Amino acid sequence: MPSHLALLSCLLVLLLSLDKFLLHYLKKRLFSGPRIIPSGASKSRRSMASAAKWSETAMLVIDMQKDFVDPAMRSPMLVAGGEAVVPAVAEAVAVARERGIFLVWVVREHDPSGRDVELFRRHHYSGGKGPTVKGLKGAELADGLVIKEGEYKLVKTRFSAFFATHLDSVLKTAGIKNLVIVGVQTPNCIRQTVFDAVALDYEKVTVLIDATAAARPEIHLSNIRDMKNIGVETPTLEEWRH
Amino acid sequence: MPSHLALLSCLLVLLLSLDKFLLHYLKKRLFSGPRIIPSGASKSRRSMASAAKWSETAMLVIDMQKDFVDPAMRSPMLVAGGEAVVPAVAEAVAVARERGIFLVWVVREHDPSGRDVELFRRHHYSGGKGPTVKGLKGAELADGLVIKEGEYKLVKTRFSAFFATHLDSVLKTAGIKNLVIVGVQTPNCIRQTVFDAVALDYEKVTVLIDATAAARPEIHLSNIRDMKNIGVETPTLEEWRH
Amino acid sequence: MPSHLALLSCLLVLLLSLDKFLLHYLKKRLFSGPRIIPSGASKSRRSMASAAKWSETAMLVIDMQKDFVDPAMRSPMLVAGGEAVVPAVAEAVAVARERGIFLVWVVREHDPSGRDVELFRRHHYSGGKGPTVKGLKGAELADGLVIKEGEYKLVKTRFSAFFATHLDSVLKTAGIKNLVIVGVQTPNCIRQTVFDAVALDYEKVTVLIDATAAARPEIHLSNIRDMKNIGVETPTLEEWRH
Amino acid sequence: MPSHLALLSCLLVLLLSLDKFLLHYLKKRLFSGPRIIPSGASKSRRSMASAAKWSETAMLVIDMQKDFVDPAMRSPMLVAGGEAVVPAVAEAVAVARERGIFLVWVVREHDPSGRDVELFRRHHYSGGKGPTVKGLKGAELADGLVIKEGEYKLVKTRFSAFFATHLDSVLKTAGIKNLVIVGVQTPNCIRQTVFDAVALDYEKVTVLIDATAAARPEIHLSNIRDMKNIGVETPTLEEWRH
Repeated sequence: MPSHLALLSCLLVLLLSLDKFLLHYLKKRLFSGPRIIPSGASKSRRSMASAAKWSETAMLVIDMQKDFVDPAMRSPMLVAGGEAVVPAVAEAVAVARERGIFLVWVVREHDPSGRDVELFRRHHYSGGKGPTVKGLKGAELADGLVIKEGEYKLVKTRFSAFFATHLDSVLKTAGIKNLVIVGVQTPNCIRQTVFDAVALDYEKVTVLIDATAAARPEIHLSNIRDMKNIGVETPTLEEWRH
Repeated sequence: MPSHLALLSCLLVLLLSLDKFLLHYLKKRLFSGPRIIPSGASKSRRSMASAAKWSETAMLVIDMQKDFVDPAMRSPMLVAGGEAVVPAVAEAVAVARERGIFLVWVVREHDPSGRDVELFRRHHYSGGKGPTVKGLKGAELADGLVIKEGEYKLVKTRFSAFFATHLDSVLKTAGIKNLVIVGVQTPNCIRQTVFDAVALDYEKVTVLIDATAAARPEIHLSNIRDMKNIGVETPTLEEWRH
Repeated sequence: MPSHLALLSCLLVLLLSLDKFLLHYLKKRLFSGPRIIPSGASKSRRSMASAAKWSETAMLVIDMQKDFVDPAMRSPMLVAGGEAVVPAVAEAVAVARERGIFLVWVVREHDPSGRDVELFRRHHYSGGKGPTVKGLKGAELADGLVIKEGEYKLVKTRFSAFFATHLDSVLKTAGIKNLVIVGVQTPNCIRQTVFDAVALDYEKVTVLIDATAAARPEIHLSNIRDMKNIGVETPTLEEWRH
Repeated sequence: MPSHLALLSCLLVLLLSLDKFLLHYLKKRLFSGPRIIPSGASKSRRSMASAAKWSETAMLVIDMQKDFVDPAMRSPMLVAGGEAVVPAVAEAVAVARERGIFLVWVVREHDPSGRDVELFRRHHYSGGKGPTVKGLKGAELADGLVIKEGEYKLVKTRFSAFFATHLDSVLKTAGIKNLVIVGVQTPNCIRQTVFDAVALDYEKVTVLIDATAAARPEIHLSNIRDMKNIGVETPTLEEWRH
């Protein structure tokens, strides 16, 4: 027992001289039980320290589907400001991949009958041709966005990505504590996902202010204001990247 | 069988000549199975037709607690515009009682340790003296508001009255399809409850625009705008009463 | 106004002379607002009265996938008694279609990494070859079972079909009040779905005792006993059919 | 940088020679960020190592209320085997307190109208005198059981302690990963809580086989069997204590 204590003292001195990232790295590598690591994570690690920093973060890419952001679809669900943020979303995804962040692609996919869509939108569904019907072109991701191996696709049927889905289960058991959110549209699916994330006790919730969009700028900004007021961080993509 | 068909034809002609309220009344009285009727409902009925009209409606009174609306409490959770709407909330409650509407009083009651409050608010809890701690004065309803027999008290720990509570269960099994919402504050607990109500397929969700409040008018109004955009009705108390 | 009252009296006399099914039919056809009717419902109606009787019932077909019921798959998830009930499940589905009952096919589909499966089963997932991985053969329905147009596929990742899914939302907004449950396996996915259905206040929950199965008969029967004790009906397929 | 690597090598050798508990202790003490510690936890620590071992465990004491376990109440909800396990539950609670385990007292408290109880039990509620009505004697804890400061009371209205409650939220944000479950009754509230706990990815779920009870021994044991089959541990109180 005395030798154990000696060992402990020695260890403590050593540990206290190490920098925070090294501690974090050791914590993740040595002390954790078996844990599911996103399979794509290892590929893009610039360094172990960086990967450790981001291993508790997931990026939610929300509703970046043709019916929401591609005017050519002529969908009643088109978000006016959506097309303009596709490049920023693609760039945010690229940064997330480089950092080894777990990527979750949240999409709506509805039954042709519309029986699983909100009541106030069911009139859009007739003849099996409604917005983001599963299998139709409008439900596909916008051009330029692709789900890669090791990333996760999560289907939802309401605004919030957490409403009646297993998203919280997937994230929590993967050790995710922080969320970065991009996509459309700010007052509905973005905000509801964000408020639910805060309610579900994610430690840090970040909305990239220029990789999210609404129908009009004042709608976007008033919702950003409300999210800031409950502790959400709202950097630009450039600020988040550095 | 032919006589049944004749009877049916006759009946259809009669039915089609009746006005909407009468139909509604018959539907409720003749065709429904046994159903739990709020026990206080019968007392204030002006007429059976009126009661039938409102038997599928509940009013949610949200967070009208001293720590949120009474400046004398000096709570960090005080909503700037809250005190001003107490009379309108009391008036809305009186109208609801007169109409036999099921009243649900939604309140926050937290553990003294703050372990059941949102992470970003936990710093307010030390020494067991945080906002709306169960049993403390700040958790009481604002002066002038009282829960009467037959009404329901629902404790929540997050913004939305539906988040991790049995509210939807109580409402749906009571046959409630429409909600009227009053209280504080618009961008957080009001809005999150409203968006969840829409996600949960309540048929009509109504927010009384002058019986709800936020810290500043522009916050209140931008949230009212967003709620309107998803089909929520936003009358004044006077409009709703007539 | 007096003429209205006369009309009402007349109507009441007529109504009281009608039988229960006719009342039920009228209720559904005349008094309901716009409602999503399962698109396949109309095809197999033997009579309107029958269709009315079953329009509030859904059948949940649970986990009838190759990895659970087909020994040829050599899956660690094989349910010993599963293969034997495939014909009974197929027969129950045929009866449901004839009656116009809304059919919901509940299946597990997991990520190749196993990150969305229960912790105690994750060791089965390595190299992307675990049980009921989305897109692999083991996740397909057992031979002889097919999802037809107008029926609904619901993906779950835990035992209960209601756990972290939008099933309750789809059923409740379709006006479903009664459930009939078939599939595998009795102590886990069947029972958890059944207990959740009772908790969610479905009015009548029915488990077809010979269209469900477990690893061993005594496991099956002890769970049937427990379900009976909370008010669940447990007829045979033959009893249910007549 | 080379010196960092040398340090790391040295550290690894040391770490690998330490036993599992020491590792666990270090993990908790040195590497964790600020975390809410149950306020009663520190009082009964025999040693830091022991406290560390149990800081991730909560005990759920389920439905130990007079109407469920006290025959003198003459409640229709009385569990035949309930009274016999009150001493074992009390003993389990004492051990939990000694170990600094977070104690959660899960109870049913219903509205006098019964409007928040399961449909199949509502006939028990008339005249406001149903089982475990809030404020009545039947809802009190059994004699000998008391909630102490720093412990948590959680009200539920359905079988599972997790169904439509904020229990998972309270446990997860307190860092709880393991659950020990005692109370009544095995096939309903115990089992549903246990299966939900597994679905919610608690790492270790333990049911004390002689501090839980059902109406009859064979019901108790068949449910224990099913729980074992999904990885739940089922020691006796004596086995768990040592």
